[in-house]
Amino acid sequence: MATYDLAIRGGTVATGQGAIRCDIGIRDGRIAALAESIPEAARVLDATGLLVIPGGVDSHCHIAQAEANGTRHEESFATASHSAFLGGTTSVVTFIPHVKGSALAPHVADAEAQASRESMMDYAFHQIIADPTEAVLAEIPGLVAKGIRSLKVFLTYEPLHLSDGEFLKVLLAARRNGCLVTVHCENFDAISWRTQALLDAGLTAPKYHAWSRPPVVEREATHRAIALAELVDQPIQVFHVSCAEAAEEIARAQARGLKVWGETCPQYLTLTAADMDRPGFEGAKWMCSPSPRDAAEQGRIWEMIQRGTLGVVSSDHCGFSYEGEAGKAMNGRDAVFRDIPNGIPGLAARMPILFSEGVAKGRIGLDEFVALTSANAARLMGLYPRKGAILPGSDADLVLWDPTRTQTLTNAMMGHAIDYTPFEGLEVTGWPVATLRRGEIVMQDGKVQAEPGSGRFLPRGLYDYI
Amino acid sequence: MATYDLAIRGGTVATGQGAIRCDIGIRDGRIAALAESIPEAARVLDATGLLVIPGGVDSHCHIAQAEANGTRHEESFATASHSAFLGGTTSVVTFIPHVKGSALAPHVADAEAQASRESMMDYAFHQIIADPTEAVLAEIPGLVAKGIRSLKVFLTYEPLHLSDGEFLKVLLAARRNGCLVTVHCENFDAISWRTQALLDAGLTAPKYHAWSRPPVVEREATHRAIALAELVDQPIQVFHVSCAEAAEEIARAQARGLKVWGETCPQYLTLTAADMDRPGFEGAKWMCSPSPRDAAEQGRIWEMIQRGTLGVVSSDHCGFSYEGEAGKAMNGRDAVFRDIPNGIPGLAARMPILFSEGVAKGRIGLDEFVALTSANAARLMGLYPRKGAILPGSDADLVLWDPTRTQTLTNAMMGHAIDYTPFEGLEVTGWPVATLRRGEIVMQDGKVQAEPGSGRFLPRGLYDYI
Amino acid sequence: MATYDLAIRGGTVATGQGAIRCDIGIRDGRIAALAESIPEAARVLDATGLLVIPGGVDSHCHIAQAEANGTRHEESFATASHSAFLGGTTSVVTFIPHVKGSALAPHVADAEAQASRESMMDYAFHQIIADPTEAVLAEIPGLVAKGIRSLKVFLTYEPLHLSDGEFLKVLLAARRNGCLVTVHCENFDAISWRTQALLDAGLTAPKYHAWSRPPVVEREATHRAIALAELVDQPIQVFHVSCAEAAEEIARAQARGLKVWGETCPQYLTLTAADMDRPGFEGAKWMCSPSPRDAAEQGRIWEMIQRGTLGVVSSDHCGFSYEGEAGKAMNGRDAVFRDIPNGIPGLAARMPILFSEGVAKGRIGLDEFVALTSANAARLMGLYPRKGAILPGSDADLVLWDPTRTQTLTNAMMGHAIDYTPFEGLEVTGWPVATLRRGEIVMQDGKVQAEPGSGRFLPRGLYDYI
Amino acid sequence: MATYDLAIRGGTVATGQGAIRCDIGIRDGRIAALAESIPEAARVLDATGLLVIPGGVDSHCHIAQAEANGTRHEESFATASHSAFLGGTTSVVTFIPHVKGSALAPHVADAEAQASRESMMDYAFHQIIADPTEAVLAEIPGLVAKGIRSLKVFLTYEPLHLSDGEFLKVLLAARRNGCLVTVHCENFDAISWRTQALLDAGLTAPKYHAWSRPPVVEREATHRAIALAELVDQPIQVFHVSCAEAAEEIARAQARGLKVWGETCPQYLTLTAADMDRPGFEGAKWMCSPSPRDAAEQGRIWEMIQRGTLGVVSSDHCGFSYEGEAGKAMNGRDAVFRDIPNGIPGLAARMPILFSEGVAKGRIGLDEFVALTSANAARLMGLYPRKGAILPGSDADLVLWDPTRTQTLTNAMMGHAIDYTPFEGLEVTGWPVATLRRGEIVMQDGKVQAEPGSGRFLPRGLYDYI
Ligand SMILES: [Zn+2]
Ligand SMILES: [Zn+2]
Ligand SMILES: [Zn+2]
Ligand SMILES: [Zn+2]
Ligand SMILES: [Zn+2]
Ligand SMILES: [Zn+2]
Ligand SMILES: [Zn+2]
Ligand SMILES: [Zn+2]
Repeated sequence: MATYDLAIRGGTVATGQGAIRCDIGIRDGRIAALAESIPEAARVLDATGLLVIPGGVDSHCHIAQAEANGTRHEESFATASHSAFLGGTTSVVTFIPHVKGSALAPHVADAEAQASRESMMDYAFHQIIADPTEAVLAEIPGLVAKGIRSLKVFLTYEPLHLSDGEFLKVLLAARRNGCLVTVHCENFDAISWRTQALLDAGLTAPKYHAWSRPPVVEREATHRAIALAELVDQPIQVFHVSCAEAAEEIARAQARGLKVWGETCPQYLTLTAADMDRPGFEGAKWMCSPSPRDAAEQGRIWEMIQRGTLGVVSSDHCGFSYEGEAGKAMNGRDAVFRDIPNGIPGLAARMPILFSEGVAKGRIGLDEFVALTSANAARLMGLYPRKGAILPGSDADLVLWDPTRTQTLTNAMMGHAIDYTPFEGLEVTGWPVATLRRGEIVMQDGKVQAEPGSGRFLPRGLYDYI
Repeated sequence: MATYDLAIRGGTVATGQGAIRCDIGIRDGRIAALAESIPEAARVLDATGLLVIPGGVDSHCHIAQAEANGTRHEESFATASHSAFLGGTTSVVTFIPHVKGSALAPHVADAEAQASRESMMDYAFHQIIADPTEAVLAEIPGLVAKGIRSLKVFLTYEPLHLSDGEFLKVLLAARRNGCLVTVHCENFDAISWRTQALLDAGLTAPKYHAWSRPPVVEREATHRAIALAELVDQPIQVFHVSCAEAAEEIARAQARGLKVWGETCPQYLTLTAADMDRPGFEGAKWMCSPSPRDAAEQGRIWEMIQRGTLGVVSSDHCGFSYEGEAGKAMNGRDAVFRDIPNGIPGLAARMPILFSEGVAKGRIGLDEFVALTSANAARLMGLYPRKGAILPGSDADLVLWDPTRTQTLTNAMMGHAIDYTPFEGLEVTGWPVATLRRGEIVMQDGKVQAEPGSGRFLPRGLYDYI
Repeated sequence: MATYDLAIRGGTVATGQGAIRCDIGIRDGRIAALAESIPEAARVLDATGLLVIPGGVDSHCHIAQAEANGTRHEESFATASHSAFLGGTTSVVTFIPHVKGSALAPHVADAEAQASRESMMDYAFHQIIADPTEAVLAEIPGLVAKGIRSLKVFLTYEPLHLSDGEFLKVLLAARRNGCLVTVHCENFDAISWRTQALLDAGLTAPKYHAWSRPPVVEREATHRAIALAELVDQPIQVFHVSCAEAAEEIARAQARGLKVWGETCPQYLTLTAADMDRPGFEGAKWMCSPSPRDAAEQGRIWEMIQRGTLGVVSSDHCGFSYEGEAGKAMNGRDAVFRDIPNGIPGLAARMPILFSEGVAKGRIGLDEFVALTSANAARLMGLYPRKGAILPGSDADLVLWDPTRTQTLTNAMMGHAIDYTPFEGLEVTGWPVATLRRGEIVMQDGKVQAEPGSGRFLPRGLYDYI
Repeated sequence: MATYDLAIRGGTVATGQGAIRCDIGIRDGRIAALAESIPEAARVLDATGLLVIPGGVDSHCHIAQAEANGTRHEESFATASHSAFLGGTTSVVTFIPHVKGSALAPHVADAEAQASRESMMDYAFHQIIADPTEAVLAEIPGLVAKGIRSLKVFLTYEPLHLSDGEFLKVLLAARRNGCLVTVHCENFDAISWRTQALLDAGLTAPKYHAWSRPPVVEREATHRAIALAELVDQPIQVFHVSCAEAAEEIARAQARGLKVWGETCPQYLTLTAADMDRPGFEGAKWMCSPSPRDAAEQGRIWEMIQRGTLGVVSSDHCGFSYEGEAGKAMNGRDAVFRDIPNGIPGLAARMPILFSEGVAKGRIGLDEFVALTSANAARLMGLYPRKGAILPGSDADLVLWDPTRTQTLTNAMMGHAIDYTPFEGLEVTGWPVATLRRGEIVMQDGKVQAEPGSGRFLPRGLYDYI
């Protein structure tokens, strides 16, 4: 009688604390044992010559998100899961939207329905708070009871941005309820002024998106978010840090002992504002916020990763197709930059890019790769060690990774519902050859096999890390 | 025939670049000569054993200010001038108020009328902008044409506080018109929340004023003001810095080459939050914003003066009497801290306190004293070298200062319209024995002699310093 | 047939990446498996209610060290092993001495003989370089071939201190040979001057030891060591950092991407200079270098641990008994402070103190405790993951730790050859109840059982971490 | 009867506190009056359209310096004075050499003889201390009695460099005697090692001079000098700062309140290491220590000037001719870089370069120009306000400066004894058209007229600034 349902043999296991040669025994979807040798198992997967790493935890993804105008993002949980598995990611934290004037409950129900019906990845939710009325805040204990323990706020975007007073209300509600608060940090008024000034001057092309939101508006909002969180003693994570001056505010906060964390994304490591500088509408493909900066800034973001200031690399996957009326061109192909939806897809590309640019190019080690792509996000989101760890008891979310395989990224490889990838043509070294979700082989050699709806919701209890 | 109207002989002249023995010849209200000896003059003032320093320039005073509720500050330009001359100050920059929904012009007219009728000091104006509508901003060129070249904005106080967008409009208008912008930096929403929380908890005594606005709310607003000024490339002065963490933001800005200046006040060098912790209503006497902090913070503010980060010491003179219904008790003697007007008088006390705590105690030299009390304010306000300098051509605003005379401060010595001084009982070393305004002896041995209305408006043209 | 020689069941395993409930299977002295359950084993150890942590790696211990004057430290490898096991430490890195004018080889042979004959702990060596002549440096490849991969230099102490030029020679030799360099950073000339000045002034008591070496001499040498290492691109570890200003130099170096690490010791977290201020000779018990500082500095050292700047807590165990002629009183009980040998014992106390002051008091978590007491030292010394990890393939060096047991430290508990502990009377929470070395239970309930000579030398190959 | 010997009329006087229109009355070699108008004078100089600035004080010049090998620098006090007057400098502080094993007295006598016989500039002395024996230190009170109040030490150069212990002795002697200590900060051992390594590798050309002494060796020595000065509480000036990382150490010291000042030189603002990269021997013309860096570093040095960290710009004039056997080629034209004497001439070029690169290009204002070229050096050296000020009682050392005149620098314009200038071909805007020394016109339109020996020694008493 086999002791384990599945054994992974012969691989080099990236434990996050060194890469060691050992076998992994899986039972009932969990890692049951790490051992020098797992002799008996119902099924065996040979990982010789491969790395075995924790399945990616992408803690910042916009999937099937319903917009205030009644539309829904093109990427469904099914297509997103497909993309995720291809890229080695097995869990996501995605967003429950919110609209001013509405309650949270219907948004929650809708998001739950979308995810439970279609997701193949495991998933948790951030609840966006766009309107922290008394009634809305009173819904938070109910969310927490469900296991939704992180709130997301925007300091920019019409009509999502919160005033400082509204942000304080969210911080206080989070503190009372033991939630993390994640923050999009850019100064709304400053961007609004710059945008209007650019449009008034006839500077309307996609590339002016970057002009409308320079680093200083990100630094300002980052410092403000930290200061307000400091005032009420509430942990926060600053999303998608794109520039060293914003990261430096996080470093200063950490040095004075605050629970402030920073995230960055592959776009800030590989893209620049110049990517938007193309004829006509094409620059729209690279529009996201904050804007990618320049090569020097990429270098400084790497330094901030190396210093540990930025501890999570998420995708901020948020796709809009280039062609068609549902995506980038929803306001026409001659829309001014202000009216082009922000966001780029990256679920599948995230881990290969970070491995290639980070590990293969010697900027980070394998331990850091694991920390940045799964363990730290899992810790911060209260999913650790269920996710992000290769330890007995952890979910058997694992990726067999070929560290030497080179690949030129194409949109076809991304497996998502979006008709382009901003990383088209990027050559990477290192590639996922198989993905396991709770012990099940859901991707092998670029073929995904899993049932829509087989992804599980990840409820989160009170956790120490925050 | 005498060459000079007046000669000051035998004094040690604090030039701001060293104290030298020389005589000063005055003609037509101006310094006509500095010379080893001025043999001929119509009148001679013997300064043997005394310092001769530039008349103080107090660039932050609230005088005869009309409030939105129709009241006017108790301190008139006449009483304020009396107080100023007693303390060695000869020029002030005071405020033209503004009320949401109104034009600037009537406020300007009123302030001009008040000042021109009663002032004995020379005076310039900061224009408060409480409501930067198109119409209001369109009035700024007219102000500039009159010689009013500085704008003042509040990031806190109801109903004065500006949103970031409104603040940007003021910064941009200032940039177009060549004005300085001065800023009261505290975060309105944060203070509002803290205030309400304290009141809800029944913590209503004056001392809770300090609790409602801790250093972090000042640091936040300071960084934000700097960031927005940086965005539009507009010089600003941060008013009344009370804590090192806010000053550090100014230091960081200066280190990256920005035109950002910092001011502090005697209250942040000598008072603490504990002064407000007295039975009943009495703590109201020490209520001002930002709040005084503690002794350690005073030490750090001295360090920031010594490093040059904080280059101006103004009084923020803003008096409300303790007794009577027009002052601190305007909302009753049992008003909660929120409803007690902020502001303390300091026109007369400013220079003696800074001399005593600074020069006499060895924290600063005489050059720094001159810089902090007159020269730097004059430079920053575009009044230099007419004011703040002892140079040929400068107005003969001079103070004969006895560096050894000790005095215990009492309200009677302040000569103002307010019924108390927060510095009562403070012992100081160093005292002004005579004050000259444009060559005229307007104070001698504690007696003031000048005509109301003899003070002159100080128009300011475009100036390089900003 | 039992699969494992020993199973540890029911414990909470401090993996360094979270504490998880799992069993550990041990075979042939190594960890063969971590598993949700280890059903079969020849022997079972019940860890219910206990933590299971990696055996301590104390990377800075002076044991049985031969001095230039022909004496040898009182602590033998046997007594030190006894002490180590009692306190949860299973491996040490200890020193091979060197004397100016001599070759390394005889010192190596002597240290090897001492250790191999008596040690029960596993051990590696740092080679002290006191005299980097061509001949001496030519011996380094031989050491490296043996597996000795770290060099130790002193920037103070007569006659050990190196000039900058000598230090550069060591750094270059280390670089050529793939060694780490560890450094005692204090400025020799500055201490010599201060010492002589104190003695000349008749200030000879033990407490003047602290006066002779203030923080600035440590900061100076730390910056210098870093700068010279930077110049030649050689990784270094700064030993026993006692003050924030020295740690800050390390933080600055790390922020610019250098391989510079910092160590501190329990004495800098719990002792102060005031401990030496006792009548007569008694203060000698607390004399070590750098000198303990004061309570505020302890707080700052904790902050530097929390920020990650100081990543290793070693004991700097270096015992001299208080009574008798071989120890502190070797130059008489009326010796001036200069002539009293430096160093205090701490092998057994290290982990309990760090657990109690760190984990129990909430300053650090269990992951940090593991990192600081074993994993980081193992990484830095090239012993990881053989030591410092609970992973398949690692040596089964484990401690069963009762996190709730309280204890008042006495010298008897230390089990060392020294007649006092500087931590006498300190109350601690958390205590090792059993210690396993390579799968063997070498300490249980305060009883040590192991054969002298059973400790193994730990050769180190070229390793990535440096 | 004329009241004044000379009046300068119509100029714009750069007072260091603003540029004002006033006349200057001179009597007995001193400034007797600054006045709106000086009607009567024996002689009048028309300064219409010109700036009137204080005569330059160059506080770091090597003139007629005797070397240990019996030679003497080619530049005599006569030729140096000629050069100084052409460039607007009227006072220098120059060096009394010292040789290990010798007393100071004969060097003092020789320097005094050289200067008193030939100098046309006024002069003070720094005493170099190369060998701080008891006997040598015992000579310092005698120097102080003569008015020599600054000591100079080298942390590099064979055989001048001091050990830390020797440097401490000098610092302590300075403290006892009220002297300033000036320091050449580069690490001797590090440079020696690099030099030897380069030579061993056959890299001997002049350009390798820069390779032998990278910024880190300057930063190291700067931090060490500051730390040792901090330890004994003695003010120091760091000479010729060439890189931001060294300047940053000075900024950090100033921020913690220390009396540490920094100097830079025109070579670090206009030259780069690439200047030495020429065929053959020619690169020798640009060899000085520290080495010029690159364009980015020049920008950072400007920032450090703007921040006030570097407050003095001296020439470090130290000339060796390019042709002939007494200068750069003293060891042959094929000498390795180590054997080529360091130092470049800059007495005449200093002020024009700083005016042009600083004031004309908008990097600094006129006040800063005055501070950097005369006032700050005078303050720091205890010569203020006799020198460096335009105030009644100050020596009438004045320069009439045409701010608009452009000039291309040639060696002929330098008027020195050296056969080249490293600034050949540099175009400058702003030029001295007349120089007055103590009221005497010593240079007009490029013609120098003064008597050798007419320069005066400037004795310095105890002064407050340090
Ligand atoms: Zn966002
Ligand atoms: Zn997003
Ligand atoms: Zn205010
Ligand atoms: Zn005010
Ligand atoms: Zn040591
Ligand atoms: Zn040691
Ligand atoms: Zn030098
Ligand atoms: Zn020099």
